[in-house]
Amino acid sequence: MALFVEKYGGTSVGSAERIQAVANNVAKSAREGHRMVVVVSAMSGETNRLLQLASEISHSPSSREQDVLLSTGEQVTIALLSMALEAIGVPARSYTGGQIRILTDNIHGKARIQKIDAEKVNQDLDQGRVVVVAGFQGVDGLNNITTLGRGGSDTTAVAMAAALKADECRIYTDVDGVYTTDPRIVPEAKRLDRITFEEMIELSGAGAKVLQIRSVEFAGKYNVPLRVLSSFTEGIGTLITYEDTSMEQPLISGIALSRDEAKLTIRGVPDKPGIAFSILGPVSDAHIIVDMIVQNIGLDGLTDFTFTIPSADLDRCKELLTPVIESLGAIDMIGDSDLAKISVVGVGMRSHAGIATTMFEALSDKGINIQMISTSEIKISVTVDKEYAELAVRTLHKAFELDEEKTTTA
Amino acid sequence: MALFVEKYGGTSVGSAERIQAVANNVAKSAREGHRMVVVVSAMSGETNRLLQLASEISHSPSSREQDVLLSTGEQVTIALLSMALEAIGVPARSYTGGQIRILTDNIHGKARIQKIDAEKVNQDLDQGRVVVVAGFQGVDGLNNITTLGRGGSDTTAVAMAAALKADECRIYTDVDGVYTTDPRIVPEAKRLDRITFEEMIELSGAGAKVLQIRSVEFAGKYNVPLRVLSSFTEGIGTLITYEDTSMEQPLISGIALSRDEAKLTIRGVPDKPGIAFSILGPVSDAHIIVDMIVQNIGLDGLTDFTFTIPSADLDRCKELLTPVIESLGAIDMIGDSDLAKISVVGVGMRSHAGIATTMFEALSDKGINIQMISTSEIKISVTVDKEYAELAVRTLHKAFELDEEKTTTA
Repeated sequence: MALFVEKYGGTSVGSAERIQAVANNVAKSAREGHRMVVVVSAMSGETNRLLQLASEISHSPSSREQDVLLSTGEQVTIALLSMALEAIGVPARSYTGGQIRILTDNIHGKARIQKIDAEKVNQDLDQGRVVVVAGFQGVDGLNNITTLGRGGSDTTAVAMAAALKADECRIYTDVDGVYTTDPRIVPEAKRLDRITFEEMIELSGAGAKVLQIRSVEFAGKYNVPLRVLSSFTEGIGTLITYEDTSMEQPLISGIALSRDEAKLTIRGVPDKPGIAFSILGPVSDAHIIVDMIVQNIGLDGLTDFTFTIPSADLDRCKELLTPVIESLGAIDMIGDSDLAKISVVGVGMRSHAGIATTMFEALSDKGINIQMISTSEIKISVTVDKEYAELAVRTLHKAFELDEEKTTTA
Repeated sequence: MALFVEKYGGTSVGSAERIQAVANNVAKSAREGHRMVVVVSAMSGETNRLLQLASEISHSPSSREQDVLLSTGEQVTIALLSMALEAIGVPARSYTGGQIRILTDNIHGKARIQKIDAEKVNQDLDQGRVVVVAGFQGVDGLNNITTLGRGGSDTTAVAMAAALKADECRIYTDVDGVYTTDPRIVPEAKRLDRITFEEMIELSGAGAKVLQIRSVEFAGKYNVPLRVLSSFTEGIGTLITYEDTSMEQPLISGIALSRDEAKLTIRGVPDKPGIAFSILGPVSDAHIIVDMIVQNIGLDGLTDFTFTIPSADLDRCKELLTPVIESLGAIDMIGDSDLAKISVVGVGMRSHAGIATTMFEALSDKGINIQMISTSEIKISVTVDKEYAELAVRTLHKAFELDEEKTTTA
């Protein structure tokens, strides 16, 4: 008999009927004798309803009180799911983050889990109960309610799985697994039966929205096998796990697209030591995340310095750097948010040369101009004009033969 | 500077605007330098919304999970009120029942408060914060969430006031105080500036709906001065306190009407010892509350036995007693829910004879037939045909001169 931690997101528990469907799914495993822990999000729409109420009362509600408010969303779901389980004869017990003592730091709104008390959960599991846990929330050392930020319920599930040494952490969502790329762009995209943590982290970081990067990192760190699957359709989903050297790795696992990128170019910067720091220091102090960075070789002692940031931060970043540009004596600063980033990810890159060549050649054949390039051990990212985003993804999906049927191992 | 515990009910916090109005009211006292603790209920409609969700999922949800569900209602309000206070520059901090450690027994749905940890609250008050507490809820010794049942927020407020030795506990509601009787029945009814705990307890028990009887008993036991006032209009409300021997007591303080009474008569019971117990034993075992009890003097060794119960329990009670009637060899059992109970309450009764006579005479003059009578030290209750209920109340209100202007002490 195995121990499974299952997580159901907001749309999966969006109505009384959906909650009953989740209960039936959980009951199936429980009746097979498995030990079951279920982590749930707020019912879809509930968090927005609560935020709307808060916004009617205050323009800048304190993050402590916002956490008190938002954490009620999951609390409603745990009670309803426990009721639904008991209604079909499955003993269940609900716990808030505070009750199960999911201890976090005190950064309200994006707290990080520090410790989970597994003892209480194990006692309930020993007594044959399904344990239903509120995702997304915890308490700090002073018992203040905290929330983990967007996608926090995934993190709760992975952390619970790690604390309980679960056999598998199953993330139920509205898609039936991880695909080679977004099927809305490439209809031939294939569901992957299996992908490595490293690939999944790179794909999440590069814009694939199936899982929050933090929960994947967490699962990787504690070696919790993670499975993404649909709560609406049957299927085995995609298992995220460590690389199994005995199995044949595909060259490329997936292609991610991010449209939320902006580029900032500072032209005519005097090419001397410390330039990168003078420019990026203030940006990072403002908690703006810089992704790709390119510095051209200088001519006449001048250089162009370009980096990408989330497009939502572009205006703030330009404002921030205006005095810096002046003090550096640079020529000017040009922002551009008509940008898309396409990333090709695969652990196969480690042992195969020529991936970059294939990528650049395929894009060139379609007349797509590459603006910036950055690489990691298992990823190549390029930025292109936003207009070409979908064409670039389709082109690369074909170039790396991801359209083809292939044998999978699950 | 005084310490006030203020409680605002569901309609008082029923919308963002109402919550802001409450914040302004609390801020006024806080800015005068008073130490303020505020207890709030769920926004009106919220509890019903949650119960509706539960009913879609289960016909008989477990009381533990129902408490987890319902307690979110007040949690939403404490967060919003704290935000509203901070938005107008008043430092505030919210606490759930579990956070402030309102320790209760483990009777879900109608738990009783056992202990409150005043230390945390005092620390916040010392730092100049308004402390906002979720009413109606607590935790048992195992940290399970409990709720206190209907009117529980009043009890929370009184218990907080007792634990903190507050100068006054103010219950804000949608009426502006305690009246000599229901103003919807008698337009001449007067607001009382002051009433004793004993009178208030008798009035609440007799059907006056201003305050839950438990919270008044609690306040009396711990000698917490209780003030009922309106959150919608200005005014001093009604102070409920111990009898002040130096002041002139009115003969009668108020008249209460209860329409939710039913009468059950068992006819032709053999008049022998143990009859009352054989009949009322099973009723009390079923947690049905018996109010008035009358046993007629027997003729031919037979007696009639009559008692009143909440009309909602009439059918269940009849079912329960059917085998008892048979085994006792009684003639039959007659239920009647066309009944109203009118109670006249006043500490003046202790020192004045003739109150009952005045009451019976006034009713007789209007041709109102009295069915049952019961008395306590400061109360006389009669049941009459429901049709005569309002007439009886108006008649007695006049007979005891409650319509007249009188000097009050507040």
